[in-house]
Order: sequence, then C-alpha cells, then structure tokens
Amino acid sequence: MADFQEKLERYAELAVKVGVNIQSGQTLAINATIDNAEFIRLIVKKAYEAGAKNVVVNWNDDIVTRLKYDMAPDETFNDYPHWRAKEMEELAESGAAFMSVVSSGPDLLKGVDPNRIGNFQKAAGKALNKYRQYIQSDKVSWTVIAAPSEDWAKKVFPDAPSEKRVAMLWDAIFKATRTDLADPIQAWKKHDQNLHEKVDYLNERRYKKLHYKAPGTDLTIELPKGHLWVGAGSINEQGDEFMANMPTEEVFTVPYKYGVDGTVTNTKPLSYGGNIIDGFTLTFEKGKIVNVKAEEGEEILKGLVDTDEGSHYLGEIALVPFNSPISQSNILFYNTLFDENASNHIAIGSAYAFCLEGGKNMSQDELEKNGLNTSITHVDFMIGSDKMDIDGILESGESEPVFRNGDWAF
Amino acid sequence: MADFQEKLERYAELAVKVGVNIQSGQTLAINATIDNAEFIRLIVKKAYEAGAKNVVVNWNDDIVTRLKYDMAPDETFNDYPHWRAKEMEELAESGAAFMSVVSSGPDLLKGVDPNRIGNFQKAAGKALNKYRQYIQSDKVSWTVIAAPSEDWAKKVFPDAPSEKRVAMLWDAIFKATRTDLADPIQAWKKHDQNLHEKVDYLNERRYKKLHYKAPGTDLTIELPKGHLWVGAGSINEQGDEFMANMPTEEVFTVPYKYGVDGTVTNTKPLSYGGNIIDGFTLTFEKGKIVNVKAEEGEEILKGLVDTDEGSHYLGEIALVPFNSPISQSNILFYNTLFDENASNHIAIGSAYAFCLEGGKNMSQDELEKNGLNTSITHVDFMIGSDKMDIDGILESGESEPVFRNGDWAF
Repeated sequence: MADFQEKLERYAELAVKVGVNIQSGQTLAINATIDNAEFIRLIVKKAYEAGAKNVVVNWNDDIVTRLKYDMAPDETFNDYPHWRAKEMEELAESGAAFMSVVSSGPDLLKGVDPNRIGNFQKAAGKALNKYRQYIQSDKVSWTVIAAPSEDWAKKVFPDAPSEKRVAMLWDAIFKATRTDLADPIQAWKKHDQNLHEKVDYLNERRYKKLHYKAPGTDLTIELPKGHLWVGAGSINEQGDEFMANMPTEEVFTVPYKYGVDGTVTNTKPLSYGGNIIDGFTLTFEKGKIVNVKAEEGEEILKGLVDTDEGSHYLGEIALVPFNSPISQSNILFYNTLFDENASNHIAIGSAYAFCLEGGKNMSQDELEKNGLNTSITHVDFMIGSDKMDIDGILESGESEPVFRNGDWAF
Repeated sequence: MADFQEKLERYAELAVKVGVNIQSGQTLAINATIDNAEFIRLIVKKAYEAGAKNVVVNWNDDIVTRLKYDMAPDETFNDYPHWRAKEMEELAESGAAFMSVVSSGPDLLKGVDPNRIGNFQKAAGKALNKYRQYIQSDKVSWTVIAAPSEDWAKKVFPDAPSEKRVAMLWDAIFKATRTDLADPIQAWKKHDQNLHEKVDYLNERRYKKLHYKAPGTDLTIELPKGHLWVGAGSINEQGDEFMANMPTEEVFTVPYKYGVDGTVTNTKPLSYGGNIIDGFTLTFEKGKIVNVKAEEGEEILKGLVDTDEGSHYLGEIALVPFNSPISQSNILFYNTLFDENASNHIAIGSAYAFCLEGGKNMSQDELEKNGLNTSITHVDFMIGSDKMDIDGILESGESEPVFRNGDWAF
C-alpha cells in the first residue's frame, strides 16, 4: 500500500500525464490556491520532468477572496481584470495547456450579497469568453482536478475529527481518481475504453429525443442533428489526447437549444459561486427556463439563469449510472467535479462545439444555427437517482430504454 | 509590550497607512510570496478598512521559482510574461498603489547558471520599463517592505536554533521599521522630519562634487545642475505622501552620469538575483564602469553591469550615517532594503527623475540631456563604514566635510 506522499506524487503525475498530457516544449498554466502549495510544487516538478517549457502558477487565496467580497465597494465586482483574461487568451493561442486545481470550500461566499457574486460572474464570463472558446472547442488541452481545503473537508465530513478530515478527503479523491490503484495510468486507459463503448453505442443509435422520468422530473430533451456523444479522453487541435476532468464517469452530448420541455428537479446540492443551491426545480418551454424555484440559494440560482440570454437554455446533457464508483462511495462532495460523476446531470449555458459533427471549426453563429446554445457561463447540476428512467426516442418515433432505475438499460 | 500578533497588525497598518498611504477608492497591488499569507491577509484587510477599492495580490512561490531555474530549458529565460508587465502598467495608469513584500532567501538562485539569471533580469527590465518609469518618477505611490522566510532567517541567524530564527528576524524587522514603538505612525512622522533637516541642509549647500575616501575607495562623484536631495517621505502625482521604503534611513540624490571617477569597494555583501556578490571593486572613468572584480559572484555582477548601456553608469548616491539604528543592530540582513539603510550606498542603473528640478515631467531623453542615467535596472550596493570620509566640493572649488568616520560631519 502506497503511503500518502507516494500517492500525492502519483496523483501529480496523473494530472500532468493523463490530465493535460503535457508535451515537450509546451507551457502549462495552473490555477491553484496557496493552501495546496506542496501538491502544486509536485505538479510543477512533474511537468518540467515531462518536458514543459514553462509552468505558470496563478495562485489564489480563499481568505483574500472572501475579504474582497465582504469589504470592497459594490463597483469592484463589475470588473474582471482584463490582463488576466488576456493572459489566458495568449497562453491558449500559443498552445499552452491549462490545469485548474479546485479546492475552495462550498460555503466560501455564503451570506455574500448575490448581486456581487452575479455581477462578478458576468464580468468574468464576458472577459474570459474568448479563452472559454478555446476550452469549449478542445483546441487546447485542459483538465480540472481537485485538492482538499480545510473548509471543503469540513463540509464533506462534518462529523469526523477535525484533524482527520483533510486526510479523509485526500483518500476519497485518490479513490475517485484511481490514484490508489497499482498502475493508475493503465487504469485510466482501461476506463477510457469502457466509456468509449457507451459512446459508440449511443452514437450508433442516433436518438432524436431523450425522455427523463423521476420523482419531480418529467423532461423531454431533443438532440440536434449531427450531435456526438463524447466521454473520457478528448483530443486537442494538435492531435494530443487529454482528460478534461479527473474524475470523469460521464458520457455526454449537447441538447437542441429550443427542444427542451418539462420540469426537472435536482437530486444533489449544487455548489456554485461559493454558495449551495438545493431543492430546486426548473421548468422549460421550448428550451427556455421559464420558472425557477429553490429551497436554498434561490437568489443565487436566479442570478445564474439571468447571466445572459444563453444562460436561460441548456448546453449539455450527461449520463452517469447510479452505480458509478463515486456514487457508490456514498460521499456527497458538494463539488460538481465529483458529484456530477455520481449522477446524471445537465448544464445551464454554453454547449461544447466538439459535441457536433464539424463543430470544432464553426463560429459561434454557426453553432447557434445548428441549435447549439452559446453563453458566457456553463454550470452542471445533478438530476440522477436510482429512481430515474430515461427513454431514447428514435427518428421513427419508436422508444427504447436507455436508463432504468438509474442504470444503463442496454 | 505588544505581543507578536499585535505587532504584526501594526506593521500591516504601517505598510498601508505610511507605506503606500492608500486613499479611498484606490486599488492596491501587492507582490508577495505564499509563505507570508497570514501577514498579507492582514495587509489586505487593513487596505480595505482604509477604503481601498480592490486589492490585487500577485503571489509567488520561491520553490516554484527555483524549480523553473533548475528544470526549464534555456529559452524560457529570454521572455518575461508581457501580460504581467501590461497589468503593472495599466494599474499604474489607473493610479493604483504598489507594495512589494520581499522575503526570499539571499541564496535562492545559488548555483544557477548566471546567464539564465542575467537573461531573465534583462527580459524583465525591458518588459517592465514603462511601469518602472511610473515608479521612478513617483507618479504613483509605492513601497517596499519585508517579511521573513525560513531561508532568509537562516542566512541572517545561522547559529540560532532553527525554530527561533523566523521570530528573531520578525523582531529585527519590527525594530528596523519602528513597529515596536508605542505609536509607530507618529514615530515615522518624527523620523521623516529628521531626515528632511539633512535634506534641506544638503540642498542649500548645492555641492558640485562629493569626494569619497575609505579603505579600497577613492571616488569622486559630480552632481548634476538642479539635483535635489530627497529622503524619507515622497509625494505622488496626486499630492499624496508615501514612504517608498520601510525602513529608510537615507538621504539621496542623482550623480551626473559622466562625472564619476575612481574606485569603490563594497563593505556589505550584495544580494542580487538570488545570489550573494561580495568583496568587489568597481573602477569608473568619466562615469563608466571600466573594471569589475569580485571575490564572490563576479559572473553575476558582470552580468548586472552588462544588462544594458545604462547599467555601466550610476543612478543614485545615498548617505546613511554609520550610527543609524539598523547599523547599530549589528545584524547583516543580506537584503538591500535593510543593509542599504545601515550604510552609505550608490546604485548602478537608472536615476530617479524626482531628484532633478522639473525632472518628474521630463521624458527619458530630457533626463539624459540633463545628465541623468537611464537603464532598465537599478541596483543599490553598500560602500559605507566607520572609516569613510566624504568631502563636499562647492562651485567655488572650496571643500568642506560632509562625513567623518562614517557619520555626519555637520
């Protein structure tokens, strides 16, 4: 059994070799919090060992962030530093790889005026729009991984002794990312193949619609012509493979923007903008969200839906069996990177261009013409449970089971 | 007696109120290392309390920096990230204040190929040239303060128990910055007045030349017409006072670029570019450095002198009595911010525009025409000791004592 330090190194290596799959001479840009310095330094070292030309770390501190939200004047939240946006754009143009190491506590911004959060999300979304297009069309390699913070660990394991929580969350992350296996890189190859079998099946069926049924959910989602199911490994413009999320247990595609009707209720809390949103129901008419209700965080959710025109529509639908390893761990992570991989989910906001035949080379306008949503935001939320059935409706009108009781039906 | 936490808060307050003297609605940009997070968060809080609109922290990590110098390919050091330069420029244009919290160990880059260091210093100097002009003409408020790192504390107190060194360096910093006094802000006001008395005297005398004599040193420095002696508090374009260095014990002005002749030998080691340079002698002819010798770090020093044309000339001369409080502490800090305030010093590189009558509003060309040096670098080094005499030579050719045995002679 590998000890903690060994697992940490393996995880850093996975992030560099499988996550962004760094190439010789490439620059790696990392977003990280200062609390995870020890782990980040390991990633930097592994990246240089793998031949990186330069590793740029953009450090953040949650306490400094919270001080800003509590103490700065209102107008501060209308601006995103555009040199940071420029940095991301120029790094993307030069073919850099991008790694985000998420870590913040889900309650980081609890109690903050939702307008401040909404305004800053809008400003960031606008400023980072060009960079996001590089990411959303898989032009460059990118990955999102996680590392514990004290606050996050406390939220996940509130009843555990305080000195053990961070270690417990590391353990859960190592398990979810296959870091604890004897040969993690090989394990990810096998996992990639397994997900691609589902992808191939769904791409062969070419469903016209999916119909979701579960308690609180009765939703029909039309799929656009030429939609592509995708899962696990991606390929960037240079032809290099990368893994955009670690963990990832989903296969996903894009909805037809104007083809979503009915009602959907979330099944796991959504951590968004430093707040928890839960017990919420969205109602759709011709793709548009026409009603928003939430037991917790309703203002934050309404702010999200009002980000721009596109944030009133869906941009992603993803299938994850209820028996996925992360779901079976029975840990609620309060973090989308993990919770979305334990549950069927859908996303408000922009659609991935690579989920449409020829989409990678289309402009935003062309994507819209093909029924793909564009927005400055993209936020996944969890709707799956062991009570969810999904039918696939073929072009002929015939219907066949895709999910039954939360698991694959084929 | 204030406890450590209280002193830390006072020091943060001094940095915000006396150092950059933050104004309501102003943005503060901080350069800091992640090891000093606790102290930096206090500064951020005090800045918002004082009315800051936004506090931007650019975090660095010494270990990530060293990994880069050890592992990245050579060409990486020819580029400075120009979005970072753009950030500094745009913040300066918008009237932000700038705080650097220096902390790195003096041996951070020991053993690194001097070409890598020299190339990166050159690239940074070029990229940051426009921002440096804002600083060097006091258009914006800026301050340099310090906080300990483990490595720095070890260099300063090598024989102290390892668990006590950081606390000892904090203590030395608190003393040098008057943080340990009952009313530090009032103490700085008094100190400012004292230094201004020396400034007024020197400005009234209008010396044509200074003649330095000490073991290993026989140097004549001509002063340009309209030179101004300056000390302690500065005033930015908006008319707000600030303290560019904390501590500061010097009064200083600019040399006439082509009027430096003779030889000078350093008296305290110079920490530059992550290396120590010591036992060195520079020879000048008509202002230009024509010979460089050093017992330690000669390659690094030669690299510094070769940065650009202007780095072959001097840009600052500063007077500090040998009985200054920092000198009397008998601590060698291996850090210019402290060591230059314990000793007469001079600087290789660019001259401060505000040390010339009307200089703040002159272009680089106009400054050169008035005999002020321009360069992308500015590096102070220490030449004072209790054996140093300095004569002031008046326009009439008459000579009078300015320093005797390392102390003021008037």
